[in-house]
Amino acid sequence: METMGSFHNLFLVFPYIFFQNFFQFDGVHVVSGSLDTSIRVWDVETGQCRHTLMGHQSLTSGMELKNNILISGNADSTVKVWDIVSGQCLQTLSGSNKHRSAVTCLQFNNKFVVTSSDDGTVKLWDVRTGEFIRNLVALESGGSGGVVWRIRASDTKLVCAVGSRNGTEETKLLVLDFD
Amino acid sequence: METMGSFHNLFLVFPYIFFQNFFQFDGVHVVSGSLDTSIRVWDVETGQCRHTLMGHQSLTSGMELKNNILISGNADSTVKVWDIVSGQCLQTLSGSNKHRSAVTCLQFNNKFVVTSSDDGTVKLWDVRTGEFIRNLVALESGGSGGVVWRIRASDTKLVCAVGSRNGTEETKLLVLDFD
Repeated sequence: METMGSFHNLFLVFPYIFFQNFFQFDGVHVVSGSLDTSIRVWDVETGQCRHTLMGHQSLTSGMELKNNILISGNADSTVKVWDIVSGQCLQTLSGSNKHRSAVTCLQFNNKFVVTSSDDGTVKLWDVRTGEFIRNLVALESGGSGGVVWRIRASDTKLVCAVGSRNGTEETKLLVLDFD
Repeated sequence: METMGSFHNLFLVFPYIFFQNFFQFDGVHVVSGSLDTSIRVWDVETGQCRHTLMGHQSLTSGMELKNNILISGNADSTVKVWDIVSGQCLQTLSGSNKHRSAVTCLQFNNKFVVTSSDDGTVKLWDVRTGEFIRNLVALESGGSGGVVWRIRASDTKLVCAVGSRNGTEETKLLVLDFD
């Protein structure tokens, strides 16, 4: 974007049926979830599809990409950690404490993954081992309509957009403090 | 997120009717578009609403916040640049070259703003003066259904998710090169 005044011409076109019109771009790779439940990793220099990441059972509903690690949340209620260079799935965040319905949003750093869901919870996981650590939020209305739509964390705080599909939970922003 | 294992209790609740469940969070402020067309700036330490930003005519459809500058795209087809400390609107990206329908996404740095729209274009603007510079993308199907849904730029490339609401434009990813 530094030299955006002097751009060249149209460079690459990837015909692609993707979901929710969103994708991740780190300057080198474009990653996007497809309607066939796969996730494609594209090289923007060559236009090649480097990897087709298989394993999720439904639609990709949230993604974050940094330092060649992709974490994908899915409507199948699981979250997967991928190495996009090798194309390997490193971890699947599931097990007995997994989300009970679609993942809505996620964020990660080099220690933790935070995930939110249609089930009204926000969960904390170990990014390296994939182990569940604890629920950060568990709405009383979880399971009867309460949803955590979106989360954003800083080093010391977590902000959650909360609501419901059926009026059981008032729309609000929650802030949790980690100081 | 460094100390997320030892979080304290629930801190603040902002009852808030917001749009599209999305918000911006820079660690200090939460900014979110409301159904009344205003944008609210909250202080996450005190829970106070610092500013209610008025001026848009419709719903906020895209936002980015950094270094106390907020840029908001709106379904009214305009884009506004705000100082969230003073609450002042610094620029409105409109005029004869403005988008012809809803803004769908935007990104900015210290020189440029890039905006995409339901009108099938991606536009480049000067962030300081608010002046239109050029169209980066103008779909032939713009005005007859072609849409640029989402854009992400690096220093040298722009990736656009393109499609249509009526089948006039195939769903694809476009990459523009600024080298």
